[in-house]
Parts: sequence; structure tokens; C-alpha cells
Amino acid sequence: MYRFRELSIKIGIILIAVSPSLAMAKDYLIESKAQYNKVAKKAVAGDNLILKNGTWQDFEIVLEGKGNADAPITLTAETKGRVILSGNSNLRLAGEYLVVSGLVFKNGYTPSSEVISFRKNKNELAYHSRVTEVVIDNYSNPDRFESDYWVGMYGQHNRFDHNHLVGKRNKGVTLAVRLTTEDSQQNYHRIDHNYFGPRPIFGSNGGETLRIGTSHFSLTDSFTLVENNYFDRCNGEVEIVSVKSGKNRIANNTFFESRGTLTMRHGNGNIIENNAFFGNGVDHTGGIRVINRDQIVRNNYLEGLTGYRFGSGLTIMNGVPNSSINRYHQVENATIENNTFVNVDHIHLAAGSDDERSAVPINSRVNNNLFFNANNKAPFSVFDDISGIEFAKNISNKLTNNKITDGIESSTINMVRADNGLLYPKQNLAQVTGVSKDLKPTTKEQTGTSWYPKAEPEVAFASGKNIDVIPSGDALYAAVKNAQSGDVLVLANGHYNVRKIINIDKTLTIKAKNKQKAVLSFERTTAFEINNSGSLSLDGLVISGENSPDYSGNTFVRTAKWGMYKNYRFALTNSLVKALNVNHSFHFFNSGSRAFATSIDINNNEFRDITGDILRLNKEQDDLGIYNAEYVNVTHNTFSDIEGALVDLYRGGRDESTFGPHLFFSQNNISQASKGKRNKSKSSIMLHGVQVANIDNNQFKDSANINVEHTVGEPVTRITNNVFQASGNLRVVETYAKGKHTAHLSNNGVQ
Amino acid sequence: MYRFRELSIKIGIILIAVSPSLAMAKDYLIESKAQYNKVAKKAVAGDNLILKNGTWQDFEIVLEGKGNADAPITLTAETKGRVILSGNSNLRLAGEYLVVSGLVFKNGYTPSSEVISFRKNKNELAYHSRVTEVVIDNYSNPDRFESDYWVGMYGQHNRFDHNHLVGKRNKGVTLAVRLTTEDSQQNYHRIDHNYFGPRPIFGSNGGETLRIGTSHFSLTDSFTLVENNYFDRCNGEVEIVSVKSGKNRIANNTFFESRGTLTMRHGNGNIIENNAFFGNGVDHTGGIRVINRDQIVRNNYLEGLTGYRFGSGLTIMNGVPNSSINRYHQVENATIENNTFVNVDHIHLAAGSDDERSAVPINSRVNNNLFFNANNKAPFSVFDDISGIEFAKNISNKLTNNKITDGIESSTINMVRADNGLLYPKQNLAQVTGVSKDLKPTTKEQTGTSWYPKAEPEVAFASGKNIDVIPSGDALYAAVKNAQSGDVLVLANGHYNVRKIINIDKTLTIKAKNKQKAVLSFERTTAFEINNSGSLSLDGLVISGENSPDYSGNTFVRTAKWGMYKNYRFALTNSLVKALNVNHSFHFFNSGSRAFATSIDINNNEFRDITGDILRLNKEQDDLGIYNAEYVNVTHNTFSDIEGALVDLYRGGRDESTFGPHLFFSQNNISQASKGKRNKSKSSIMLHGVQVANIDNNQFKDSANINVEHTVGEPVTRITNNVFQASGNLRVVETYAKGKHTAHLSNNGVQ
Repeated sequence: MYRFRELSIKIGIILIAVSPSLAMAKDYLIESKAQYNKVAKKAVAGDNLILKNGTWQDFEIVLEGKGNADAPITLTAETKGRVILSGNSNLRLAGEYLVVSGLVFKNGYTPSSEVISFRKNKNELAYHSRVTEVVIDNYSNPDRFESDYWVGMYGQHNRFDHNHLVGKRNKGVTLAVRLTTEDSQQNYHRIDHNYFGPRPIFGSNGGETLRIGTSHFSLTDSFTLVENNYFDRCNGEVEIVSVKSGKNRIANNTFFESRGTLTMRHGNGNIIENNAFFGNGVDHTGGIRVINRDQIVRNNYLEGLTGYRFGSGLTIMNGVPNSSINRYHQVENATIENNTFVNVDHIHLAAGSDDERSAVPINSRVNNNLFFNANNKAPFSVFDDISGIEFAKNISNKLTNNKITDGIESSTINMVRADNGLLYPKQNLAQVTGVSKDLKPTTKEQTGTSWYPKAEPEVAFASGKNIDVIPSGDALYAAVKNAQSGDVLVLANGHYNVRKIINIDKTLTIKAKNKQKAVLSFERTTAFEINNSGSLSLDGLVISGENSPDYSGNTFVRTAKWGMYKNYRFALTNSLVKALNVNHSFHFFNSGSRAFATSIDINNNEFRDITGDILRLNKEQDDLGIYNAEYVNVTHNTFSDIEGALVDLYRGGRDESTFGPHLFFSQNNISQASKGKRNKSKSSIMLHGVQVANIDNNQFKDSANINVEHTVGEPVTRITNNVFQASGNLRVVETYAKGKHTAHLSNNGVQ
Repeated sequence: MYRFRELSIKIGIILIAVSPSLAMAKDYLIESKAQYNKVAKKAVAGDNLILKNGTWQDFEIVLEGKGNADAPITLTAETKGRVILSGNSNLRLAGEYLVVSGLVFKNGYTPSSEVISFRKNKNELAYHSRVTEVVIDNYSNPDRFESDYWVGMYGQHNRFDHNHLVGKRNKGVTLAVRLTTEDSQQNYHRIDHNYFGPRPIFGSNGGETLRIGTSHFSLTDSFTLVENNYFDRCNGEVEIVSVKSGKNRIANNTFFESRGTLTMRHGNGNIIENNAFFGNGVDHTGGIRVINRDQIVRNNYLEGLTGYRFGSGLTIMNGVPNSSINRYHQVENATIENNTFVNVDHIHLAAGSDDERSAVPINSRVNNNLFFNANNKAPFSVFDDISGIEFAKNISNKLTNNKITDGIESSTINMVRADNGLLYPKQNLAQVTGVSKDLKPTTKEQTGTSWYPKAEPEVAFASGKNIDVIPSGDALYAAVKNAQSGDVLVLANGHYNVRKIINIDKTLTIKAKNKQKAVLSFERTTAFEINNSGSLSLDGLVISGENSPDYSGNTFVRTAKWGMYKNYRFALTNSLVKALNVNHSFHFFNSGSRAFATSIDINNNEFRDITGDILRLNKEQDDLGIYNAEYVNVTHNTFSDIEGALVDLYRGGRDESTFGPHLFFSQNNISQASKGKRNKSKSSIMLHGVQVANIDNNQFKDSANINVEHTVGEPVTRITNNVFQASGNLRVVETYAKGKHTAHLSNNGVQ
């Protein structure tokens, strides 16, 4: 104790070096928050504040002062990457010519509204300042609905470059350029060479990665440059980049397998050029969405994009006549030229046309673009009059059913990949079409820092080792506890009675050595609780409620009842689930509030004698919330004597910022399902606000009906080739839209 | 590292002493879980297992083996009270003649269904075993709805004595005698000299302190003796002790200020004698409730009890003809004799009479009791034919409106307190009436252990020191962080802008030095978040939303959104609340799910220009849950231009196990309230399932209506002396009961 105190007194402030040109400027090695605050208070141009390596807890850093172009005030790490800011830490800059580098924010979240703020408070902003080689890694508020920005850029002439931002899980834009006061407008910020790592699906509005401005300031020019950044699976919501101000330039960025689009939501005169979008056929990958006046979209490369509607490879919107500042302004004088679209499934023109959005694009042009779809399907959908868009000198391969032939010359084309990684026509085309051969997409390696790894966000099931488990005492409980993420527990034949709730906080597979020879029962209200970082796959088990407590409301698997902030996966395969019936409302799977499954896969199982629901994914009835699952796949199962619903999937609210949920329910055999008096949904399948639903080739016998409530987002529902025997009527309703419902129903037999 | 290992090897198993009479029996000083498991496996009669002092984390202890009456196997602490079992620890006993003593369970909760279990599993039970001088202190699952027992008694001839159990906060009986198999019936357990410390209001079913049996085994005899225990403010729910089996004896226990009753819910032939109930006028303190056959209630002393209906000082119920095992069996051959009732407000006879409960008490007697009410009000209410109850030789003081005169002789009586602390008539009465002079109520000191303090459960507001705070930077935030529970922060004049959410995890008062000269604004979604152990009182402030974020759903004060397991208090006095209107749905106070306020006091304030609700106490709409507040007092306030509801108080579900919520809303002046389109309740005051409501002497002008939904429990609603000017119609509905609503409405002026 005393020795430590002595040591720290001795260290005090150490003068490491004096720059010869700046007699007064010093390097300070900082060892404590108190010392930092003392030194920072008197920092002058050329001073270099160096945080000692280690973990700094709850450190709210303020760097303020006046440096100059030749001698900024700098804050950095003793060793880049070895200064960890955790707990409730954050950083504020105010003044001029400040440079911060080398810090890592992780294991915590900001107590204020931003992690890195280019201002100290409303009146004290930063100018000519730079944040470079800083990492923010999963530094998310554990309450997903508590909003913050990771980076808020204020002031003018600031640069944010070579930073690494990954895993934002709570509400709020990752990086926001704020134009809230005059001192932050016409800002000429530069945002470059950043690695925007995977941002998981948020499941609600508020998951944009980058936003410039807000509707309120959208008629203001921002002059922000966003270049050479890498957007790696930025899947937060429908807008990856949301431009909401004027005169910005978004150039040379790469969008890798990111769901959503670069959207010019508000503001005029923006330039989008030299960007590359690689969708690789991933669901909902999109490109560029054009709204407002004077937008230029040129020399962009887009490949393998599957998105549709407002998430298409290219979307040109209809506007609202005399639009208010926060609705849709008409597209006018848009230039779309020299872009290459390869295997882009959808290009939507005059999109969003309806009673309100009736102002069609005018005085615009689509020139010198190349359209190539290997499947020969034309990508174009036209929703209103597009005579205001001139098409000229575009080229495509041979496309069937192409609605746009004027200005697009159809030709035989073969594509070959060039050294820059992009596809170009093998043939020598008559005119300059598509992207330039000089385009060099920004690579992952060129962004972020060299010293911080760009790790994969998810551990795959069964990517680890196999571990044998025998049915004795708490062996299964212990095996789960000791397993590594990715491992497979292989259960020998026998009966496994689980005395305590098993916490799943890693990716785990539990598999019967011999199919349906391992029996699982449990004594508490649930057998498995999936918590943060957990994902669970069960294979070949017999699951029985025989030893469960005689209370209502047991559930075989649940997620944490509240507060999950990491998305999870759950799978059940080749299993028999029976006798969940010791009391009423005994469910198979129950989601907690705010929990979000990226996938739930229920395939090739038998379920029988269950008093509750099978999949309860209905916890966000506050209509603000995060819906409970993105992809729900239920195929080749048998269900009999189930009192509750088979699937209850709810996505509330009216915003259109998410792609899901999706349900695929196929090839199932159902009898005596969902007619219990406590089945609140009164249905076998209850879908509210589900965006994509395929229900096909199922047999329903003596069961409750299917109930589909469409809300917003033009949901795609297909119910086909099912047989309904004494099983109620299909019900599909539009909650908001007028007229008949839009579901596709065909070839369903009713007996 | 190496040194430690060496040391632990050396220690190994140490032989401390050999009892001369038992050559094989040993004392073991246990230093690790592994060592314990090794030793416990071979424990023989006379062995003494001694846990070393310190904190044992996640230790699931199993003590099993065969001791004998002279030489039990014992498990104890090196020093009683200094062996702490924390984290996920618990204890199971199986075998014969086992004795456990001296352990303390705190800072955690059991991972299984019980903390102390008199069985290892369904087949291996404990007999002739004893747990004594063990403490379980706030060892509650943080998920209040996850059920467990603290003590589960199985087997036969076991004793649980001199233990200290305090602060159970989650669902589930504190101590349950289980009759689940034949081996646990006719058990002759003895439960004595235990200190049942304060159990806070649970707010839902599942908060009993002691239960013997369940309805399923209620026709089985238990022969359990419960004597000389002290029940100190056991307020979990309406049943303090729930007898659900036959032939038990509950004797010489003291019930101190405990809400609820000792209830003979199921089972016949129980004896309740020599107990003392001291209500001290506390709300809902009750006595004894009689149901079923052959119950004897004699020589009990009951004083200062306010409870009514099923929570009365004495309740004799009606039964259901041919009742199923889990409903109400008819009272037959009940003997109520030689009890003293002093200042007991209510004695309800043939209580619960309705269409279903129509079987009146028969062949029963109420003899030799003494009834004394200083206010001269007769305590008796009669709900059906009570000719089956013979009254004889009872004496009362002069009572007005007494409906029972046969068998109760009215006399002039003065009471004096005797040395045993009980009141007896000064006069020499003609016959032996009331409790015997020999009765010696069990005192707190006689129960529990001498080495563990019986602490108060709550810190009072302003019980600490005053701390001056000035309006500078984060000074208020820091002051809260550094304060001790009970302190008062005194704010100097000026503007306090709160940049971060202030966490309230202690009892704290924040007070303006000069009334309404300290202004509070805040930048995040909330200013104060009340968390576990937190209670907040605000006095004399100006509260403004001027700096709040431009999002919907801000709230000035909230509790943790989920997972509160400690009850809290909130008060606002003499303050001005204004401009909560930067965006829609800006609330003043918002309760989280499962959070429970023992009191919310809003007195002498002004509220104006608010887009949300004032008090949102409506989070348990799952109808299972814990309602959000017990006592809500709103008096002498002015409300104007409020878009949301003033009070939204919801208590769902149909069970009758709680006394609250209560609302007192008086002397308020309301204009332009609750007519915003986003006010979901559409009302100024929305009450659902509220048990006691007094709304009187308010002025409502241009405001939405009052909406009262009665559910179960015979709620008491009085709406009197209000003036409604252009303010909608009062609405009172009965959700379940037939016929006209039971609210008392009088002297309300409608203009």
C-alpha cells in the first residue's frame, strides 16, 4: 500500500522530450485521470499528451485548447491499441488543431450522448481537428433502446480517418455529422479510410451507420467528404448511409454485403461517385437511392445486389408535391452516368408512387450505364411516368421482358474480371459505358488501423470440438459451462434431468449420439436460457416436460427476459418434443423483450401434447420495439395436440426501416393445433407486420386458422399449396393500406 | 503462485479433535469445495464438518449420511456468522440425524428451486435432522418472477429453529413444508424460534412467509408444530402463514405489524393458540382466518389490527357446497375461545358469501372472548346466516351499532397493560374471558441468532446529513454519487444542467436551498433513473425539459426499465415542472416493468406544458405481473396543459393476494389535461384493478374523464366533492362482477 503510493508520487509528471522548434511544447506521459485533468487544463500548441498503457475505467476525457497547423495539441496512447477506455468513458474535443489517436473504446458504453464528440458543449466546438486510428468496439449501451451516437462531428474542417468502428448494437447512428448550429454547417469535414465493421440488424429504426445532417437542416449545405471507407456488413437498418444535407461528396467507398442502401434522403447537389457495392447475393443488399434535386451518381460499381423496393440496386423515387421538409422532395436534374450494374436484381423507378408521392422525376438523365444480368432478367420496375428521365447510351446484355428499351442498347456481352476485381465486358463496346477501368475499390486493409484485427462477428455452430457427455448428475450442466464457443456436446443414450437453468452464453450445439436416444427433462421454469453471446442448436433429442414444476408459464427454451443486446441464433432439428403439459401455458420457445434472433430454424421435428405456444416471438407490442426474429424457418415438422399458437410473430409500429421479419413455414403436418382457450392469438400462425411470409405445402387438420395482419412496408405474403381440413378460415387484413389485401393465395385446399 | 499451491497441499485434511466416545468420529476443518465433497462423501455418525471462515462462492452443499440421536453428523461454521455462502450457493440434506448451523446465505440466490432443502432429490430425503442458527439474508433471485423457496422441508421429524430469514423479494414462499410424497406426510416437523424478518410487499401472488402443504395434499395430516417464531413485518401478500394441511399446531408466535393473516386455507383440525398479533394500526394488519373443519383458535391476543374483508382481525368464511379440493370448504365445528381482540377494526363472519360460497358456518362456537375497541365501534360485519355459530360468555366494552348482542355481554371496561405487554381489563370480570394472564408473547430477541443483527429494512428520507451543491459542471452528478443513503443535497440558486443520467441507488433527498430557485434540466432521455436500493425525494425545484433531446419518449424520472427487485419510494414536493414538450410523449415519471413503489407522493406542485403522462404506473399488462405502486398520493397540485394522463395505474390479473394499489387524489386543480391524441388511456385518471381509490375535492376543467375499472377483490372507490367543468363523464365499470358498480360517488358537480 505505502510502497505503491510512494511510487506514484515519484512518477508524477515526466518530461519525455522537448521538440527543438517549440521550446514550450512538451510530451506528458499521463498515469492517472487527475494528472490528465491537470495537464490538459494548460495544454498549449505542440503539447503531446500520452496516456499510459492499460485499462482506464470511467474516464471522460476532454481535450481542449488551441493548437496550430504546424503544432497541434495531440492526445495519444503510449502504445497504439494498448490504451483501453472502458466502463463509462468518452471523449470530447473543443478548440483548434487537436489530434487524437491510438485509443480503444471497449467493454462499456458512453454515459453521455456520444462516445466521441467534436464539441465540449453546445457552445464550445472543435475546428481543424482530427481523430485517427481510434477503435470503438462493441461499446454499446446494453439497453438497446437507449440512444447514443458513437461519433458526433460538430464544428468545421475536422477529419475522422483510419478509425475502426464495429458492433454498435443500441439505437442511434454510428457516426453523425451534426449541422445543429451555424458553426457546424458548410463544415468541409473529411471522413476517410475508416473501417465500419459489422453492425448487426437492429430490428427497428435507428440503426444507420453514417448520417450527414437531419431533415431539419436538409436545405443547408454541408460540404462533407466521405471517401475511401469500407462498410463491412453494416446491416443495422434500411439506410447504411443517410445523406440529409446538401453538397456532400461520397466517393471511393466500398459496401461489402451490407443490407440497405446509400440514401440521398434529404438535401440537394450531392455527388456519389467511384463507390463499389458488393452484395454477393446476400438478402436485401442494395445500392443507391435518389431523392431531391441535382444529385450526381457516376462511375459507381454495383454487383450481386438482391434488394428491392426502396432497397434496390438503384431507386429513383417519386416525390411529394410541395413537400414539407421531412417528406419526399421531387427528383429533379438527377444525373446517373457511367455506372455498372452487374447481377443487380432490382432497379426501381418512380418508386413509392402513391396518392401522396405523385411528383414524378423530372429533367433527369440515365446515361452511359452498363446493365448486365447473367440470368437475363431485366431489373427495371416502373411505378409511374418516367418520361422525365432521359435514357441514352446505356448498354445491357440480352434481357427478357425489359420495359425500358429506348436508350438502352441490348447486346451480347460476356463479363470478365479485371485486375481491380471488377467485371468488365469482354467485348469492345462502341461507347464509354459503365465504370472506368481506373476504378480501384477501397479494400478492407486500406481502412481502419493496422494494429486492430478485423474479426468475424459470429461463431458458427459446430465450428469447435466434439465433447462426449454421459447422463449422470449435473454432467450436462457442467459440460455446457466448460465448453468453448463452437463446441458440440454429444449426449450418450440416457435420461438427462436438468436441476438448474442452463445458461447459454456461447455458440453451442447439443446433439444426441443416437437420434432420439437422449432424453432431456428439467426441474425449473426453463431448461435453457439464451443470454448475450449465446446461440443454441439442438439435434436429435427427446425433450420432455415430465419433471417440470407444476406452475403455469414454464418454457423449454427462453432468452433472457429482458436486456439482450446481442443477436442470437436458435435451431432444433430431428427432435421429439412432448409432454409440455404439467400445467397450462407451457411453451416451447419464449423470446424476451428486446431480444432479437437472426435466425430460428425448426426442421424435421415432432411436437406433441403441449399446453402453450411453440414459438413466442411477440414481445414488442409497445410498437416502438425491436421485433424478436429476422428469419424464422419451420419446415418438415409434425405438430399434434398443441393448445397454443405454432408461431406468433409480431413486428409493431409504422416505420419502414427494417427488412424483416421473415417466415418460411413449409411441409409441416399439423393436427389439433392452437385451439386451447388460453391461446391469446386464437390462431395457429399469427403474423403481425411480418415483411416476408411463405406458408406452403402444409396440412392443417382440426386446427385454428392462419391470421396475417399486414402493416407497412408492402409486405410480401405467399400462402400456397396448403390443405386445410376443418381448420378455420385464412384471414389476411391490411391494417393501414386501403383496398384489398396484397397477399398471394393460391392452390389452397379447404376440406 | 507456487507458494500458494504448496501451502494448500500442506493443509490438506486436518484432524482437529477426536471425541473420546467415538473413536471413528472426527472434526474436519474444510477449506475448499473439493475437500468438502471428499470428506462429506464418507461422513459417519459423530463427524463434524467445519467450514473455514470466509466467503464461499457458488457452493452447492450436499450433506448426507446417517448419524444417530447421540452422534449426529454436523456441518457448521468455524465461527458462527463468518461463513458466507454467496453467488449461486445452496444446501441439501439427505439421511438421518444431520445438523447444520452457523451459516449465512447472502449476496446471491439459489440456482435450484430451494436455498435449503431437506432432501437431495425426489427419493433421498432427510429425517430427524435439524437446521439451526442459519441466516438467509436477501438471498433473492433478481428476477422477481423466478420462483423459489428459501426453505423446503421434506421427510419427517425435522427441526428448523433459531434461524434468521429476511428480505425475500422474489416469487415463492419463504418456508414451505412439502407433503409431496408419503415420506413427507405426518411429518412432526418443529419450526421454532425463527426470526422471520421483514418481507417487502411483493405486489402479486406468491409472497407467503410460511406454508404447510398445498391444496392437493390438504386432506392429509401434517402434524407440524410452528411455535415461538417472530414474524416481523412479513408483508409479502395477504397470507402470512398459509395452513394447507391438517393437524398442525401454530402456537406462541408473534406477528408484528405484518400485513395479512394467519390463514387456515385448507386442511382440518388445526390448533392456533397463544399467539400474539400487534398491528399498531398499520394498514392491512390482520389476524386469523378460519376455513374448513375442526379448527381451534384459543388464547390468542390481537391488538391494533386494521385489516378488513379476508384480512380482518378474525374472519370466519363461508364455504362452497361440495367444494373441490382447491376451493373453500365449509366451516364446521370451529372453536374460537378465550381470545382477546383489542382495537381490532374488523371481524367478518360468513365472509365471502356469494353465489358460489353459500355454505354458512355450522356447529361452531365463539366463547369466552374479549372484544375491546377504544373508539366504541363494533368490529362485526355479518355477510350471511351465522346461526351456526354459537356466541357465549363473550364480553365487550360499550360498542355502538353492534349487530351481535346475544352471547356478548357489553360492559364498562378499562384496559391496562400488564407486565407481559398485553392489555387486560382493569375490572374484575365475572368470568374467564380473553387471554390468560400467563401468556408470554415471543419477543424478537428470543428468535433468530444472537450473532446476526435484526436490521431495519429501509433508510428514511433525510435521515443523513445535509450537503451543499452549487450549479457548476457535473457537480450535482458527483454529489449524488458521493452521498450516503439518507443524505440531503441542498442546491444553491442557479441552473443545473444534467449531462448524464443520474443513477439513484440510495435513499436521497434533493432540495432547493430557496424554493424554486434551483432549476434542473437534462440532456439525456431521463434525468434520474431509480435503481435497486434507490429512493428519491425532490423538494422545491424547478424542473424544465428545455435541454432534453429532441426524441419522443423522454421522461424526467424513471426506474430501471426492467429487473428492479427492491421496492422504492419517490416524492416530489413544492416544485414546478414545466416545458416537458420538446417532442411528443415526454413523461414526468415512468415506471419500469416489475418495479414496485411502496409510495409515490406528489404534493403541492405545479405541472404545466407536458406532452406525456405524469405518472405511468401501468407496465404489468401481462396480467401476471407485479403492479407498479402500492400507495400513490397526489394532493394540492396544479396541472395545466398536460397531453397525457395524470395517473395511469394498472393492477392486472384475477388473483386476490394483494391489498393494493391505493390512490389518494385530492385537492388538485386541473385544466386542459389528458386530451392529447397520444394519450392511450384517453383519461385524466385511469385506474384498472386499483383496490382503494379516493378522489375528492378536485377541480377538473376542459380535461378528459376519470376511468375506473374494477376487477377483483371488492375494491373500495370513493369519488366525492369534485367539480367537473367540460371534462367528460365519470366512468366506473365492473370487469368481472355482475350488476351495478360498487363505487361510492357523491356530491360531484358537473358543469
